Amino acid sequence: MKAVVFDGELKFDENYMKPERKENEALIKPLLLGVCNTDEEITKGYMGYNGVLGHEFVGVVVDSDDKNLINKRVVGEINLGCNNCPECNNNLQRHCKQRSTFGIYKKDGCFSELFTLPNSNLLVVPDNVDDETAVFVEPLAAAYEIFEQIQIKPKDKVAILGDGKLGLCISTIFSALNVDYTHIGKHLEKLEITKNLGGKIKLLSDIKNEDLKTYDIVVEATGSVGGFETSLSLVKPRGILVLKSTIAAKEGLNLASVVIDEITVLGSRCGQFEPVLRLMEKNRINTKPLISKILPFREAIKAFELNRQKDTIKILLKV
Amino acid sequence: MKAVVFDGELKFDENYMKPERKENEALIKPLLLGVCNTDEEITKGYMGYNGVLGHEFVGVVVDSDDKNLINKRVVGEINLGCNNCPECNNNLQRHCKQRSTFGIYKKDGCFSELFTLPNSNLLVVPDNVDDETAVFVEPLAAAYEIFEQIQIKPKDKVAILGDGKLGLCISTIFSALNVDYTHIGKHLEKLEITKNLGGKIKLLSDIKNEDLKTYDIVVEATGSVGGFETSLSLVKPRGILVLKSTIAAKEGLNLASVVIDEITVLGSRCGQFEPVLRLMEKNRINTKPLISKILPFREAIKAFELNRQKDTIKILLKV
Repeated sequence: MKAVVFDGELKFDENYMKPERKENEALIKPLLLGVCNTDEEITKGYMGYNGVLGHEFVGVVVDSDDKNLINKRVVGEINLGCNNCPECNNNLQRHCKQRSTFGIYKKDGCFSELFTLPNSNLLVVPDNVDDETAVFVEPLAAAYEIFEQIQIKPKDKVAILGDGKLGLCISTIFSALNVDYTHIGKHLEKLEITKNLGGKIKLLSDIKNEDLKTYDIVVEATGSVGGFETSLSLVKPRGILVLKSTIAAKEGLNLASVVIDEITVLGSRCGQFEPVLRLMEKNRINTKPLISKILPFREAIKAFELNRQKDTIKILLKV
Repeated sequence: MKAVVFDGELKFDENYMKPERKENEALIKPLLLGVCNTDEEITKGYMGYNGVLGHEFVGVVVDSDDKNLINKRVVGEINLGCNNCPECNNNLQRHCKQRSTFGIYKKDGCFSELFTLPNSNLLVVPDNVDDETAVFVEPLAAAYEIFEQIQIKPKDKVAILGDGKLGLCISTIFSALNVDYTHIGKHLEKLEITKNLGGKIKLLSDIKNEDLKTYDIVVEATGSVGGFETSLSLVKPRGILVLKSTIAAKEGLNLASVVIDEITVLGSRCGQFEPVLRLMEKNRINTKPLISKILPFREAIKAFELNRQKDTIKILLKV
């Protein structure tokens, strides 16, 4: 079968071996796929992963030992736990020490004509949610995860820093949940998407001295050391800095102000899909402005190239 | 008057100008002083401070416009707020943006024959608390601050990393409050102090693979980049890493695992004195094992030298 594979280099493989469905798994045929920056990071060595790329999809179950799933349109959570440890028993497969991660760590992903996932990872997509919306469940769930971890109070002063894919997924969820936030970024044309959602926007260059140390909560979504430091300068004493991207700081990262201002730095990663599907079913999520281009699956390598361009938001692949 | 001054170099000044008491301030004569590692850091340029060093004291009020304070034995909180901002109105002078800090930032400290502090910063020491106990209120309040910020549940698995002054102040408070904790350090003779308090102890070299990612809460009290990284490796997914020291990382500090394991990194600094005095009054704090040496005030420069030695815990100065 055709598959997008990384084995030291990124390639479109015409003859990748078809996956075998194991017990309690489903065999899935994708309909629409999303390219994530993590896919790009993997091609630079992140996680030391080799295999089929991709973890964002909406697809149809073609085989499963759960007969109720067959022919259903599904999305799938990406962490596969051992289902036999305190984390898994607590429904935190995403923190299981033995976990594999779909398309990221020890488990082939979804950029192929067929793939497998455990039945228990799958959620059926409501009929009124179209593919172009459903394919965003995973990145939107990562944004929604913040609400699993902290309480954002109705009058909290909140900022999102970074107007890439991640920042825009967060502003989409924050708007859906009526958070009063300011989206700070470098690209007016991307911030316009947030503005249309009813969020406040601000160019990074318009940050003034009087904005510093005033935010109760700042969400770092730039993935850069500079973004971490800007976020720290914006959050007020005893405030919360939510880290949504794996910042690999090679330069010095000075945590002194975390101590002096007693900041809470909160790491935040994958989230659960169900609350996002609930929002989608209610028609409260509009993903259309986030889609830069839909390419046919066979143009996956070109999709990776487009994904690297500054003005790109989300590239989708139609299978 | 005699004073220990830093003005680019550390010196014992025989003729420093006597302080003038302003409105709502007290003039204080110290009885016993404590040398803190922050004092040492200042002599290396921390905070760009010039002036009288020192912020740990117990003393006697010799003059004040609050007549109830005169001749009383007192300790004093070290942050001086503007008393006219949201933080100050919330009794968080230690986070006032206009604050000065006693012996650390824009306000002469206590290593002198006389000094001043606002009346509102002073707490009268209960009669049954001796000077050698009372002089520890400030560093113990910094340890107690953790309980202002997070809930430590009765069955939480807790570690303190670092067996210097700071780590031992934290173990003293954790023992007083019946936390079930393991104190991890490099110096068996210092860890013995914790053992005598009823805490569990472990040498850093005895940490095994199966100890990693198992602690609900880890308190970083080493002040080193290595300590930060060890703490991160010990805390379990979704656990809390409390940062008690201003780590100025010049090397790369990789926060990726904070995101992947969704760790909460919590900065923690100064605390309020009143709860510590309450513990002291109940005779639940024994500071004697923490005192390495008591020197006369005129030997302050020697005290700084002793403070730099690895086996030293707390050096006190008797005025």
